[in-house]
Amino acid sequence: MCGVFGIHSAERDVARVAYFALFALQHRGQESAGIAVSDRGRLTVLRDMGLVAQVFDEEKLQALPGEVAIGHTRYSTTGANAWANTQPLVHHGAARTVALGHNGNLTNTEEVRDALAEDGIVLGATSDTEAIAALIAHDPSPLPLAVARAMTRLEGAYSIVALADGKLVGFRDPHGIRPLALGRLRNPDGGEDWVLASETCALDLIGASFEREVRPGEVVVIDEDGLHSTQAMPEGRQALCIFEHVYFARPDSTLAGAEVHGVRVRMGERLAAEAPAEADLVMPIPDSGTPAAVGFSRASGIPYSEGLIKNRYVGRTFIQPDDALRRQGIKMKFNPLAEVAGKRLVIVDDSIVRGSTMHQLVSMLFEAGAAEVHVRVSSPPIVSPCFYGIDMADEEQLAAAHRSVEQMRELIGATSLHYLSLEGMQGATRLPEASVCRACFTREYPTRVPAERNLAKLRFEPAAR
Amino acid sequence: MCGVFGIHSAERDVARVAYFALFALQHRGQESAGIAVSDRGRLTVLRDMGLVAQVFDEEKLQALPGEVAIGHTRYSTTGANAWANTQPLVHHGAARTVALGHNGNLTNTEEVRDALAEDGIVLGATSDTEAIAALIAHDPSPLPLAVARAMTRLEGAYSIVALADGKLVGFRDPHGIRPLALGRLRNPDGGEDWVLASETCALDLIGASFEREVRPGEVVVIDEDGLHSTQAMPEGRQALCIFEHVYFARPDSTLAGAEVHGVRVRMGERLAAEAPAEADLVMPIPDSGTPAAVGFSRASGIPYSEGLIKNRYVGRTFIQPDDALRRQGIKMKFNPLAEVAGKRLVIVDDSIVRGSTMHQLVSMLFEAGAAEVHVRVSSPPIVSPCFYGIDMADEEQLAAAHRSVEQMRELIGATSLHYLSLEGMQGATRLPEASVCRACFTREYPTRVPAERNLAKLRFEPAAR
Amino acid sequence: MCGVFGIHSAERDVARVAYFALFALQHRGQESAGIAVSDRGRLTVLRDMGLVAQVFDEEKLQALPGEVAIGHTRYSTTGANAWANTQPLVHHGAARTVALGHNGNLTNTEEVRDALAEDGIVLGATSDTEAIAALIAHDPSPLPLAVARAMTRLEGAYSIVALADGKLVGFRDPHGIRPLALGRLRNPDGGEDWVLASETCALDLIGASFEREVRPGEVVVIDEDGLHSTQAMPEGRQALCIFEHVYFARPDSTLAGAEVHGVRVRMGERLAAEAPAEADLVMPIPDSGTPAAVGFSRASGIPYSEGLIKNRYVGRTFIQPDDALRRQGIKMKFNPLAEVAGKRLVIVDDSIVRGSTMHQLVSMLFEAGAAEVHVRVSSPPIVSPCFYGIDMADEEQLAAAHRSVEQMRELIGATSLHYLSLEGMQGATRLPEASVCRACFTREYPTRVPAERNLAKLRFEPAAR
Amino acid sequence: MCGVFGIHSAERDVARVAYFALFALQHRGQESAGIAVSDRGRLTVLRDMGLVAQVFDEEKLQALPGEVAIGHTRYSTTGANAWANTQPLVHHGAARTVALGHNGNLTNTEEVRDALAEDGIVLGATSDTEAIAALIAHDPSPLPLAVARAMTRLEGAYSIVALADGKLVGFRDPHGIRPLALGRLRNPDGGEDWVLASETCALDLIGASFEREVRPGEVVVIDEDGLHSTQAMPEGRQALCIFEHVYFARPDSTLAGAEVHGVRVRMGERLAAEAPAEADLVMPIPDSGTPAAVGFSRASGIPYSEGLIKNRYVGRTFIQPDDALRRQGIKMKFNPLAEVAGKRLVIVDDSIVRGSTMHQLVSMLFEAGAAEVHVRVSSPPIVSPCFYGIDMADEEQLAAAHRSVEQMRELIGATSLHYLSLEGMQGATRLPEASVCRACFTREYPTRVPAERNLAKLRFEPAAR
Repeated sequence: MCGVFGIHSAERDVARVAYFALFALQHRGQESAGIAVSDRGRLTVLRDMGLVAQVFDEEKLQALPGEVAIGHTRYSTTGANAWANTQPLVHHGAARTVALGHNGNLTNTEEVRDALAEDGIVLGATSDTEAIAALIAHDPSPLPLAVARAMTRLEGAYSIVALADGKLVGFRDPHGIRPLALGRLRNPDGGEDWVLASETCALDLIGASFEREVRPGEVVVIDEDGLHSTQAMPEGRQALCIFEHVYFARPDSTLAGAEVHGVRVRMGERLAAEAPAEADLVMPIPDSGTPAAVGFSRASGIPYSEGLIKNRYVGRTFIQPDDALRRQGIKMKFNPLAEVAGKRLVIVDDSIVRGSTMHQLVSMLFEAGAAEVHVRVSSPPIVSPCFYGIDMADEEQLAAAHRSVEQMRELIGATSLHYLSLEGMQGATRLPEASVCRACFTREYPTRVPAERNLAKLRFEPAAR
Repeated sequence: MCGVFGIHSAERDVARVAYFALFALQHRGQESAGIAVSDRGRLTVLRDMGLVAQVFDEEKLQALPGEVAIGHTRYSTTGANAWANTQPLVHHGAARTVALGHNGNLTNTEEVRDALAEDGIVLGATSDTEAIAALIAHDPSPLPLAVARAMTRLEGAYSIVALADGKLVGFRDPHGIRPLALGRLRNPDGGEDWVLASETCALDLIGASFEREVRPGEVVVIDEDGLHSTQAMPEGRQALCIFEHVYFARPDSTLAGAEVHGVRVRMGERLAAEAPAEADLVMPIPDSGTPAAVGFSRASGIPYSEGLIKNRYVGRTFIQPDDALRRQGIKMKFNPLAEVAGKRLVIVDDSIVRGSTMHQLVSMLFEAGAAEVHVRVSSPPIVSPCFYGIDMADEEQLAAAHRSVEQMRELIGATSLHYLSLEGMQGATRLPEASVCRACFTREYPTRVPAERNLAKLRFEPAAR
Repeated sequence: MCGVFGIHSAERDVARVAYFALFALQHRGQESAGIAVSDRGRLTVLRDMGLVAQVFDEEKLQALPGEVAIGHTRYSTTGANAWANTQPLVHHGAARTVALGHNGNLTNTEEVRDALAEDGIVLGATSDTEAIAALIAHDPSPLPLAVARAMTRLEGAYSIVALADGKLVGFRDPHGIRPLALGRLRNPDGGEDWVLASETCALDLIGASFEREVRPGEVVVIDEDGLHSTQAMPEGRQALCIFEHVYFARPDSTLAGAEVHGVRVRMGERLAAEAPAEADLVMPIPDSGTPAAVGFSRASGIPYSEGLIKNRYVGRTFIQPDDALRRQGIKMKFNPLAEVAGKRLVIVDDSIVRGSTMHQLVSMLFEAGAAEVHVRVSSPPIVSPCFYGIDMADEEQLAAAHRSVEQMRELIGATSLHYLSLEGMQGATRLPEASVCRACFTREYPTRVPAERNLAKLRFEPAAR
Repeated sequence: MCGVFGIHSAERDVARVAYFALFALQHRGQESAGIAVSDRGRLTVLRDMGLVAQVFDEEKLQALPGEVAIGHTRYSTTGANAWANTQPLVHHGAARTVALGHNGNLTNTEEVRDALAEDGIVLGATSDTEAIAALIAHDPSPLPLAVARAMTRLEGAYSIVALADGKLVGFRDPHGIRPLALGRLRNPDGGEDWVLASETCALDLIGASFEREVRPGEVVVIDEDGLHSTQAMPEGRQALCIFEHVYFARPDSTLAGAEVHGVRVRMGERLAAEAPAEADLVMPIPDSGTPAAVGFSRASGIPYSEGLIKNRYVGRTFIQPDDALRRQGIKMKFNPLAEVAGKRLVIVDDSIVRGSTMHQLVSMLFEAGAAEVHVRVSSPPIVSPCFYGIDMADEEQLAAAHRSVEQMRELIGATSLHYLSLEGMQGATRLPEASVCRACFTREYPTRVPAERNLAKLRFEPAAR
């Protein structure tokens, strides 16, 4: 997962606006950050490991003048060279230079790479992102056409901000798997500028208004004459990743017309209807389970309460507890409230991936004296990996892929366990079933995917050198 | 405000335990951190600016062997030299060397300094903490007596962990203004060790059990023979800072027998009873207002919801927005949910100090379309400064010190504004009125305080050099 | 002043080789460092403030695969945004993308900028380097021709390594003002690769053999087929900066056929012949005056000795001495030996710019008891500024520009002062007079220069935005 | 090896003076640095890994007020916890607290530790320094007597600055193995203050005058009443480490009445007389061999020249060359001048320890075309380890310990090899033979030393915990 942002403005300090927008998108990636600017055709890119506030300082922002900026925050990756994977990535092609920030994941990278290689265009080892940039950079067609032609060769998920020919470009795969919002920023002089962002919460932070989403299959090109839209690919069945609603997006963002927070509350409400519990308190796993717990409480009438207090400073400590601390169950991240003692609890979270964290939390609550711990999950069991950019786990690591709900309950040690039904989840989004990707719950992918559902096999190996 | 911790253990890696305990107390101070250890009489101290995880690494922890450790986290201070104020502070006296971490604030530092100066003992410029250490370090009496004699000369608030004569010492002013908990840590070999901590959440993190609080006026000395307690000062009227319950302590800590989270929920319940509102939603200012908002919702039956989403990455960014961003009302810390539009809202926070943040949040909610914004504060108006270690503001900066509630309502621009009554707050704590300090609400201080209630006048000036 | 390096190799880890070569060129610039690589057409650039060893680590080097690398070290600049000035600079033009590292300074940047602006190509604010890159990047001619055409529009000094069309390019202004060496690196498999470097000392460090210098006006393009040379500009009168021999180059480098160390020794020998002194010891100002002092000693028969010991750790301390230390003449950088007491000294340095340092050193030696201090300078008086990349000072700051030698002697407080004659300096280089630039000594510039010899006036102002 | 400094001054910013003095002593230790101050009895210590300029900044210096300061720079140590070994070390004893910086090495640490342990005083794992501090800190005698009594129990080398009872203390082992100078610093108001420093070059940098050396066996205590001297141990045979003169001390320091630079020049002169060579040039290994090479040149009449250019930026690069670079003989630190080609060279260095570096340099010179390489060493063969603080190597690693001079010549591959004789070296110092320690050349130690001359066996093991 990643966050992307783009702005075209002759009036504004575009790098500074991008900095603040990335700040709002920090939850979509904490490993690295970068900004690329175009200053009347001159491209400058600055990217490095770390949080947005660690990568940039005043001097560096001031070294990024221009009238177009794109920015990117990247989720932690394992194995591959992390610095090499920082974005925006720049590719210099025969036709143009392209700087590009990608949110998503291609499923046919090898095919694209092979096709490019036939044309003598060799790519780096680790990135599907570069394949996209290369297609555009080497195509002598005018920019919108070059993007459109590239899109015909890509499969998978891509919501992209790019910078080419001095213009800001945004485009989204024909299924619209990852979000991409279009906004307008009013300037001091009364004029307006266009911005693009992964989530509307970034528009809010910088004071931009939300215009609409970039449509699946649409290319928008923004230059000094304004916005130019091309429907590059027929807008087929949309397949917005429903996991954005379930977990990934910030609750104050609006996706496909629905504010995420409200969707999550409704998920909790439906969960309460589908899987009620006799209990004294409803408690979230903070912060991911909070809105659904609120909804569960509203619908069930069982009082809402915080129950596990999260340590806000958990993060980059590399000190390891010793054996004694480990045996005593060191509570680095969560601590249960004493008031859970003797209570029958409903614990709400958005999903269970491997199950180990939930097992620990359930144990912790029983140790704190809870009488019963009823776990309610505001989405269905995850049974299949994501090939579109969410690094959940391989199928074999997904606890629910090979377990019944009762087996899952045993695994986590809860008094009872219930998941929200597929229909319940869908209903909470108020989106038509045909408009979302639910493959991690259903194994029905909107695009071709590898026969072997093993993410490790999808990882791009370095080319032999 | 600060956090303190102490451990005596022949079995454990005491510095490592202190590291993790300080991690749980990080909310009590982010400016600096330090640990002092005694290794069979040998004292080593390491303190520096930054978060606990920034100050210590593996090599440094391993350079801190010993059987006693004390630790300290310090709140941000302004003006004075920050490095000089890092703790634990060490004072070498005629009788012994004392390492000491202090939570609180003396009100008669000048008197103590003058008395020490008469004995030829000159203190540094900026710290009341050193006066305490000096009194103990220069007193040839046995340690418990030396501490007791020191306490007779101190006025104000002090909850202290110290390390002297190879022993761990904890003591608390006769009013018990700041908290200090005593815990037991079970060891792999079955034995037990004593620990001291500002809050019980630190005991929880390291797997220690809560034994009791150090009593007001009590001195505990912990050595290889166990715990030795002396009631050094008659246990007078206790005056636990009620603001710990209102705001400062972590909700999962237990103070004076009550878990903080529950107290805050009850404050919200009473607030709903005292100052009901016709409204559609109850929302907290996160995270400080969350438990009281939950309580308000329970008591009023108005649905609870999150309404302002907090950016978890706000912190050390030094990049400033430009004028255009500022005019557009950049939303670095909070963003309102769209679902507030058209709604009548109850907004709950624990307190209002200067009023400027609340004014911004109320404006933000109205801009987001809220129909009404009823502000409810789960404590009474703050009218007088704290001389006991909470750096609120001077009296003139306290918005409510010179304003009626109606004037406060105008200041923040709310539809209505109500505070919890003194009685309501007291009742929520379930503590006798006589057992808490409520001076910031009542101007009735448990100790002598300066006639001029101007904190700036209290700041210790450097001695002429 | 700056250092540049380039390598084309299918066999080697080109970024690693560039790293070590830049290490040898660190004396030519300590402010920033950068490396750009081309990996089968893919360009990656990493540049940042700091020494070479501070900018790069293993992970970053490994993120720079490729078969061509160029590198750059930059001298400290004042005023302008330092990060923006880091190199290699990348310019994406209509015809190609060019990454480029520049040693030297143009004298007609404004003309080139204006001409580019007429073609709609707008440059950044602070850099003549970008003008060069832009000319090549926008010219649709084949690469060698594009470089050649760019060179016809440039005036001033430029020794350049560039990376374009996946090839390594080196070129040098028609006067060959700044050095640029061509070398061959033998590979483990027996093959050979071409490298380019500002100085031969970089070839030595990486084990490359020196082939020849890039000729004034020559363009070399290096690709998988080897080296292609074009004499782009008629090889006119060469004008190698004689100050490279006097001061700037490392003594173990060979310039225009002469090893710098030997040239400096001969300067000292001639100085002894031209301006003998009755003295007991000959001493250098280390390290710049050492070879000439050795030469002076050899020719005069006066024993050579060190006399001022240099603190090797002087550098980035930002602690200021207080007044008391200042009054006592704190000796941060140099300390005289006691053995100078009572002696008649000859002190040799390569040049005097402002005169203040030499004044301090002469005073220091007299305070240490020197009987006489005869200053001998192994080059003539500097009377005019350099427009070709050595940031000496403006004409008004050049102490000798408006002073006689006797006035200079008074200024520095020496017993006697003599400079090497123009002929002596020239003779020491064993180069024909017509082959060097000596403008800082003669005011005779090999190219057009601004009428007002004020460097501040030459600084490029940011374009109005 | 280490550097120490101390100052007592009511008038000066003592930490700042210490900072600059440590800057002059940086060559005696680059691993860590620290300063301790006493402010009217209050002790503050700041020590950390890194160079002096890295450990301290303005805020930290300003947090170190006081009227006494001591400082320490520490040489790189291996194995043990480096942070734990930073100094000044503080020991809090029954009688007083002592902060102490140590230059030297005890040879009876285990005995002292055992004796202390019998008194119930347990020391840390790695340091002989603490044993010294503990003896003083636990002795109830007046300070000068406590120091004197401690000295009676110590064997080995110790030149120490300490801070106890608010006073500055300096003392030196009865053989005076390591240097310690006493100086006077004139203040703005006309008064004077005493300072102590490992070398006189530190006095020079801060503008202090050299008064005399602290005598072997002497204790000086400096307080507001001035200097108090006690001859604590009978001034026996002095045994100043002659290796300070050979290599370690800065050339601008004066030791035992002789300026080091002059001693080294005379060593070179005598070497020329003892071991002449038919040669064209005399060249040093910079910087350690420079003065002796100057002397050799003077005495032999063979012209002096630099021949190997040292890269001044060698230091903390952690990037490793790859195999290809290694095979090509990467020249990170030294590069030979081309002018050595065809020449018969005399190469002068101060000593040979393991022989591997000299072997590389000789090979490098032959590869550069040298006709003959005559190596001359300005001290005798090192045959026995140092137990007094110079971490040369174990006896088995000392190349000359088990090799004849001819075998050494073969090892390093030189045309000829000669060492200065013991008499020659002694004569150059102009000190009586009986006044120096030459044990590394003669195996005659001035104190008892372990039978097994294996330094690894001397390393202090951590006490069982």
